[in-house]
Amino acid sequence: MENFIFHNPTEIIFGRGTIPGISSRVDRKSRVLLLYGGGSIKKNGVYEQVRKALSGRRVVEFPGVEANPRYETCLQAVKLLKKEKLSFILAAGGGSVLDAAKFIAAAALFKGKDPWDILRTSGSNVRSALPIGAVLTLPATGSEANSNSVISREATKEKLHFSSPWVYPRFSVLDPETTYSLPVKQVRNGIVDSFAHVMEQYMTFPAGAPLQDRFAEGIVQTLVEIAPRAMDRKPDYHSRASLMWCSTLALNNLIGCGVPQDWATHMIGHELTAFYGLDHAETLAILMPGVWKFKLKTKKAKLGQFGERVFGVKGANAAIKATEEFFHSIGMPTRLSDYRISADEAAERIRARFTERKAAFGEHGDIGPGEAAKIILSRR
Amino acid sequence: MENFIFHNPTEIIFGRGTIPGISSRVDRKSRVLLLYGGGSIKKNGVYEQVRKALSGRRVVEFPGVEANPRYETCLQAVKLLKKEKLSFILAAGGGSVLDAAKFIAAAALFKGKDPWDILRTSGSNVRSALPIGAVLTLPATGSEANSNSVISREATKEKLHFSSPWVYPRFSVLDPETTYSLPVKQVRNGIVDSFAHVMEQYMTFPAGAPLQDRFAEGIVQTLVEIAPRAMDRKPDYHSRASLMWCSTLALNNLIGCGVPQDWATHMIGHELTAFYGLDHAETLAILMPGVWKFKLKTKKAKLGQFGERVFGVKGANAAIKATEEFFHSIGMPTRLSDYRISADEAAERIRARFTERKAAFGEHGDIGPGEAAKIILSRR
Repeated sequence: MENFIFHNPTEIIFGRGTIPGISSRVDRKSRVLLLYGGGSIKKNGVYEQVRKALSGRRVVEFPGVEANPRYETCLQAVKLLKKEKLSFILAAGGGSVLDAAKFIAAAALFKGKDPWDILRTSGSNVRSALPIGAVLTLPATGSEANSNSVISREATKEKLHFSSPWVYPRFSVLDPETTYSLPVKQVRNGIVDSFAHVMEQYMTFPAGAPLQDRFAEGIVQTLVEIAPRAMDRKPDYHSRASLMWCSTLALNNLIGCGVPQDWATHMIGHELTAFYGLDHAETLAILMPGVWKFKLKTKKAKLGQFGERVFGVKGANAAIKATEEFFHSIGMPTRLSDYRISADEAAERIRARFTERKAAFGEHGDIGPGEAAKIILSRR
Repeated sequence: MENFIFHNPTEIIFGRGTIPGISSRVDRKSRVLLLYGGGSIKKNGVYEQVRKALSGRRVVEFPGVEANPRYETCLQAVKLLKKEKLSFILAAGGGSVLDAAKFIAAAALFKGKDPWDILRTSGSNVRSALPIGAVLTLPATGSEANSNSVISREATKEKLHFSSPWVYPRFSVLDPETTYSLPVKQVRNGIVDSFAHVMEQYMTFPAGAPLQDRFAEGIVQTLVEIAPRAMDRKPDYHSRASLMWCSTLALNNLIGCGVPQDWATHMIGHELTAFYGLDHAETLAILMPGVWKFKLKTKKAKLGQFGERVFGVKGANAAIKATEEFFHSIGMPTRLSDYRISADEAAERIRARFTERKAAFGEHGDIGPGEAAKIILSRR
């Protein structure tokens, strides 16, 4: 087990009817930026509950944060926030709204010349941020209880992440009933996203960390168990609650304590989203089996353990097959051709971009431009 | 799944050679009470490392915190702390030293007349506490990352607990190498204690919380897997590191989120320690199988799941048997007669005390004085 520091200060308020809990957690003198997305919170009752909980405070709204939140949009929010002298950000929505809130919170107090530098340095130059609270309506990214954010720049088709202890939400409200109105597609994306987050921190090599292995396997076992009910159009509280809790614990830094991590699937996937507009989870379902097959030799031991414990199958190849079958069982495609994307074109575009950035990913840092291209070609 | 709030602000600094990390986490102007136990930290190098990390600060030592820390001892420490105007408590040792630190931290700022009221009200009247930092040398109680404390009053043979968000350690340093000098008995106690903590939050009834079940099972699976190596006299870093991480996660509030809890074993066990001086873990190994058998009907579903997933056995009775066999395999007795304690006497003493306190424990609140006596009699 490697040395680690674990420090996650976010308060999780979980369960039915918990949105009023915001009221006692946001100071009465706060001037609040209420950030949200395309307006789904106005249809599912979240908006009314949040406004009621914030009553008595100055609240300025900034709607319209898009999926894969844009740098350009965030800068507009920063402008509004400064003009209105706002002191607290309340993000209501999914991972995109939360990620945007984190960037806005950091950019609002950023002393550097160009806020893009926050992303260019992966957050290492962030020295402070406005406080953030969240109401999560889409279980997927884990952004509600971590310090990560991914932002896309429309002008240059770049998608970069940053991380800083300053942007942990002070609190996050997780009410599973707010997910009842989600389209099936977004529930499916959430399942795959959470699954992939776990695997990035697990599917490497044995590292003397059996408890971390069990926790990672436990999240995926639960996702596999609840997926059919969670995807059902008739809402089922317990399966939606479990999905929500799985997605939070998949990426709140806990299961990654003291173990090697991969993240090649995510890094290549970000490029597929930037170039072709695929949903984040869609890119992960395509690429993850490809990364595993490409690195079969070094991942063999963990693939075998995973296949046996989670799917009851023997051997590394069977584990990869079982994973693809699970994705198919919930209607998630795993090939570029399913989206009519040319593997050759994608491989060349990403090879060029990774060459320019001198990219090297994976737990051994050996997935560079050429390897990424090969992985993409294997997923045509 | 029940509603819950999860908020654990303790920073964990985990791994080899991490004690110097104290230095950057305790303000230079702090006046530090250094609390420790019987002096084992002077033999294993922890004392020197801690003193070095605290150099430049005013440090006053209070050694001699005993196992099952005494109220009377804690009050002496509070007196010293006030006399020396100390502002920070650094606890170096096992759960007893940490529990004492929490009580001292709360009692130092307690506004009530009698500090015993903190324990009599289970901590509900605690409104502030001095900051605490910890260096853990004995993985067992989970006190390094929770808000619980158990204190014994010598004069009245009482053992009571309190809990308050004010007494979470600000940070806890967990260096597995500090456990290398532990006597085998204490490692065994730590394994059983962690095992029992998990079970108090798990062995109830199915509650629509499959992820919490998997995490709980994962900790116990890991304990069973590493126990032989962790008990070996030749230190093995990875198994000691896993034991340490298991014991922290067994009782940092995570696995208990949103699920029913039992705790009857602990409550009866505290009395066995108070009356007969048994180690805490020794009482748990005796009583837990008894509580399970006594409540076989209501715990049947979880016992079956547990037996199958952790020990690969079928049925509730087989799960209880496998658990006892595991305890025996590491040399832990499970009967009162192993300690030459009269079951009849113990049953009557505890029946009287629970009657006086109107005690009712267990996930259904139906283990009162008569039931506790029956459980004890079944463990003669």
